[in-house]
Amino acid sequence: MEEKEISQAVISRLPRYLRYLTELKDEGVERISSQELSKRMQVTASQIRQDLNHFGGFGQQGYGYNVESLVTEIAKILGLDQEHYIVIIGAGNLGQALLNYANFSRRGFIFKGIFDSNPALHGMKIGEIEVRPMEELKSFIKKNNIDIAVLTIPKTSAVEVTRQLVDCSIKAIWNFAHVDLDVPDEVQVENVHLSDSLMKLSYNICRNKKAEKDS
Amino acid sequence: MEEKEISQAVISRLPRYLRYLTELKDEGVERISSQELSKRMQVTASQIRQDLNHFGGFGQQGYGYNVESLVTEIAKILGLDQEHYIVIIGAGNLGQALLNYANFSRRGFIFKGIFDSNPALHGMKIGEIEVRPMEELKSFIKKNNIDIAVLTIPKTSAVEVTRQLVDCSIKAIWNFAHVDLDVPDEVQVENVHLSDSLMKLSYNICRNKKAEKDS
Repeated sequence: MEEKEISQAVISRLPRYLRYLTELKDEGVERISSQELSKRMQVTASQIRQDLNHFGGFGQQGYGYNVESLVTEIAKILGLDQEHYIVIIGAGNLGQALLNYANFSRRGFIFKGIFDSNPALHGMKIGEIEVRPMEELKSFIKKNNIDIAVLTIPKTSAVEVTRQLVDCSIKAIWNFAHVDLDVPDEVQVENVHLSDSLMKLSYNICRNKKAEKDS
Repeated sequence: MEEKEISQAVISRLPRYLRYLTELKDEGVERISSQELSKRMQVTASQIRQDLNHFGGFGQQGYGYNVESLVTEIAKILGLDQEHYIVIIGAGNLGQALLNYANFSRRGFIFKGIFDSNPALHGMKIGEIEVRPMEELKSFIKKNNIDIAVLTIPKTSAVEVTRQLVDCSIKAIWNFAHVDLDVPDEVQVENVHLSDSLMKLSYNICRNKKAEKDS
């Protein structure tokens, strides 16, 4: 299949398509039209056709999309047909929550290790996985072919840890620390700044209150 | 100050401005030009001027922005000059992580209660706050002027709980459940779909690998 350069906006929408289509597949639905999918997802049918056309257009006029093959194709595009090995840095509540989240492993994201600078936690088991000291991080990443490092540590230590991760050629960082990381272009970063999303809520609540008062 | 309708894209960028400007303030910096801020934030100076002009343009030619007053203004626009009362539904690791995150309360987000359907957790204390049964949710929300409900429960229960929240006129839902919620327009929803962000990373890792192979 010939692949064009796909915008990050389209890529951002693919996981949502995958979620709906996987649900349909689990319900036993074999095919769906862009109109029906549009109703379920509250997106226009033309947006759906445009988005899915980027990948060669799996839909057929008068037939619709084959749900199972679309699930397979989107998963492949997202790189979910291969396994990704992950370490978590920071064994606090958030690190533990991510480690215990079973849905990630169902999609091929395999947690291999968790690290913390607090000696009191070393050796503690979270599920099947033992908390290790930071000194072992670099050798562990190399030995276990780790692709992705998750940062669930305070921003004060995130910068130094990021330097170590770049040193051992990590491919991607999933960053929950409240700071923007400075990394070379070849390292992928995806930020989850939780406060930012809470502040957006706060803005929209206040705007709503204001609108009610003005009306 | 006359306020125009501000796009959600601009609003999404405000928390990041607030983060950088608060750091500058903490460092004792009193004023900053859009050029200097641009260098720090890796955004163009013209983007900064455009964004901040939405709020009446606090900058002065040849002087730059007054850091402290900009922090105050942005916080006010985001509704952070008032307190927001929050409940968490789901006392698992993620719920506990959010409850324990001190930075939220610094910004006026006050956690008032945490609820879970599992009787084994009822009465357990997380920090100062006791886990309550779901049966108390509605009366608690009304009695404590709760603005925001956080959903850290599986998607299977999220739909039913959302119905209850809408019934007692919740203003906003911060949704970590892996499902899109169906709510009336006046209820604000902010989704944090963690798998989606992990899948974006996976896509970008695979694209990078492919580019390396092709080159």
